[in-house]
Amino acid sequence: MIREYLENVLKEVALDIVIFAFREGRMEVLLLKWKHTDKYSLPGGRIRVDESLKDAVTRTVEERTGLKGVFLQQFQVFGELDRYAYYSAQQTREYLERALGESLEDLDLLSRTVSIGYYALVNGERAQPKPDAFTEACAWWDVHDLPRLLFDHNHMIVRALETLRREIRYQPVGQLLPEKFTLGELHRLFEVILGIPLDRRNFHKIVTGYDFLIRLNEKKVGAAIRAPQLYSFNFKKYYAALKEGVGL
Amino acid sequence: MIREYLENVLKEVALDIVIFAFREGRMEVLLLKWKHTDKYSLPGGRIRVDESLKDAVTRTVEERTGLKGVFLQQFQVFGELDRYAYYSAQQTREYLERALGESLEDLDLLSRTVSIGYYALVNGERAQPKPDAFTEACAWWDVHDLPRLLFDHNHMIVRALETLRREIRYQPVGQLLPEKFTLGELHRLFEVILGIPLDRRNFHKIVTGYDFLIRLNEKKVGAAIRAPQLYSFNFKKYYAALKEGVGL
Repeated sequence: MIREYLENVLKEVALDIVIFAFREGRMEVLLLKWKHTDKYSLPGGRIRVDESLKDAVTRTVEERTGLKGVFLQQFQVFGELDRYAYYSAQQTREYLERALGESLEDLDLLSRTVSIGYYALVNGERAQPKPDAFTEACAWWDVHDLPRLLFDHNHMIVRALETLRREIRYQPVGQLLPEKFTLGELHRLFEVILGIPLDRRNFHKIVTGYDFLIRLNEKKVGAAIRAPQLYSFNFKKYYAALKEGVGL
Repeated sequence: MIREYLENVLKEVALDIVIFAFREGRMEVLLLKWKHTDKYSLPGGRIRVDESLKDAVTRTVEERTGLKGVFLQQFQVFGELDRYAYYSAQQTREYLERALGESLEDLDLLSRTVSIGYYALVNGERAQPKPDAFTEACAWWDVHDLPRLLFDHNHMIVRALETLRREIRYQPVGQLLPEKFTLGELHRLFEVILGIPLDRRNFHKIVTGYDFLIRLNEKKVGAAIRAPQLYSFNFKKYYAALKEGVGL
């Protein structure tokens, strides 16, 4: 199976995708657990010879989450000669053979590869994580409590977060929220990404000053005594505001 | 020669580098003219199997400009299936054969390639442009007056400029200036990159409010009657300020 797959993909280029979701007040990423091992990696894959880079990334995210039309952003190409951080090339080959259930002796599967790093911003409530052919689990992990990942994937997640933090004014981080959300959730999202506390009153004042928040005729149920107001995005206006930078 | 070269490089990944300089008030890019043709492309090349992506880019920029330690930034990976804009794959193959002086019939030189786009910010006074093995000229071109380039290279330059414009607060565009410069030159540089006029007084006030400009005991000679003051950068302070964003 792996041999057939490899015939139709680029071999020197890989994709790795940091799929972010905001779940219960935490930034989380989707990790795959390799079959018959206790080792994890980011979702990713290869570019088919007959598809564009963009189509390959979109397809991979859809395969892992069931979601279409997800926001995707290239953030870095990883081109070091040695991309093995916690586990050596030899160890990684063994894990891969276990996961695939076949010997790779005659295959150059782990030779020099340049990996294109993307991050995706998804709605954690709508995503339906699904492992691929050589993994047995696909689940959310808190970005601040990750296992030691295969390859340079811990480093990739750090770099993706740094990029998101630096570009928060221009990236549609609101895509991480459920369709209906409270200002408290939006506030918490910004705090978690930036890693610093933000004055609540001031934050509310700034975001409600934009025209992209729709105040719904609904309050969050099951919450506190004073049920908080729910909002949703006018995405057209939100994206227009992001072009100028949503200043916080 | 080309066959030997290809044995030691990645074949599915290419590098293309938009080398910017600020010369006589204009943003310019370095273009290569292919031998025995009137066709142009960006400088670029391949990654050797024994060098990292970063080393490959650094080496290529040094080969084309003679400069070491140049500021380099990845800005986009170009992974479309068809990367031929003005000249078809067939035409491009013919130009390449002319430039190399040999038939490529048995070579897969122009098969599917993903290209990693970088931009470089160089001091136009210090750069010494030099063509490579299959080009006969390497020269500066005004970004607003470019020929129709091979591959998708016009598009790449547009994207590089857009990135530089969007990230001007965080990118060391001062690297484009000569060692000693006037506030007028710095002002003009920002106007040219942003493509809009900036109030001169206000601009001067903002930039001199930072601590990264060193006022020299020197004035620009040969200029107007009132010779303008020369400045240089304290690059350590400049880079520190860029981390927060140099607000203009």
